[in-house]
Amino acid sequence: MTAVRAAGVPILRLGDVLVTGLLEELDDRSAMAFLTELTERIAAEGATGVLIDISRLTVIDSFVARTLSELTTTARLLGTRVIVAGMRPSVAITLVELGLRLDGVETALTAERGMAALGWFRTASSQEAGHGDDAG
Amino acid sequence: MTAVRAAGVPILRLGDVLVTGLLEELDDRSAMAFLTELTERIAAEGATGVLIDISRLTVIDSFVARTLSELTTTARLLGTRVIVAGMRPSVAITLVELGLRLDGVETALTAERGMAALGWFRTASSQEAGHGDDAG
Repeated sequence: MTAVRAAGVPILRLGDVLVTGLLEELDDRSAMAFLTELTERIAAEGATGVLIDISRLTVIDSFVARTLSELTTTARLLGTRVIVAGMRPSVAITLVELGLRLDGVETALTAERGMAALGWFRTASSQEAGHGDDAG
Repeated sequence: MTAVRAAGVPILRLGDVLVTGLLEELDDRSAMAFLTELTERIAAEGATGVLIDISRLTVIDSFVARTLSELTTTARLLGTRVIVAGMRPSVAITLVELGLRLDGVETALTAERGMAALGWFRTASSQEAGHGDDAG
């Protein structure tokens, strides 16, 4: 139950989906720590899906690209689906130019679409209901 | 468009909901930076709801408690609902003992329930659909 900290990246659990986001390019060691923690959390919490938001990343190098590929493959072996969401167009262009195709990595334009692919939907109606404060 | 970094806390956008999580007790300066960034993101992205997962926090001191209260009040003035999710029972007990009631702060037992309160639901059916890889 200790709060394992990998590269300072919080991993939220939303039901059977783990949600996380990268803030900036990881160094190699942090990327490995992130990979390890996420894999352990998948197993420990029985996650069926993982969403990784990378909308804040302005650079993805070959190591991070490979880490994302490996994470996806590892998760698949555990029966878990990984979606990488929010890649900036400039990052995508650079990846292709570098020949880093992220084969096997499922992507989504936005975190919202990624969550939808993992079965999480926003309903329009519930916003009004139960808008009480002091619930705690 | 620069990735403003407050206390190393990523803030994800899921539709009109911002999702964030605290990893460990913030120092006062980081708490203020977090408050400022989150408020700016609410306005900039037109968020109608904010979920703050605190399941990893083992301690909440009076300053962080006040920051959460202020954030909730500030967000309400902007028309946005804030839900603090995942507080550990031991933290809740300590807060009450300290007389920190977090008045006005809406809470949820888990991040999943908090998201449900903000209108995000997990559907059972979609997990099978579109489970293709190589979407990117």
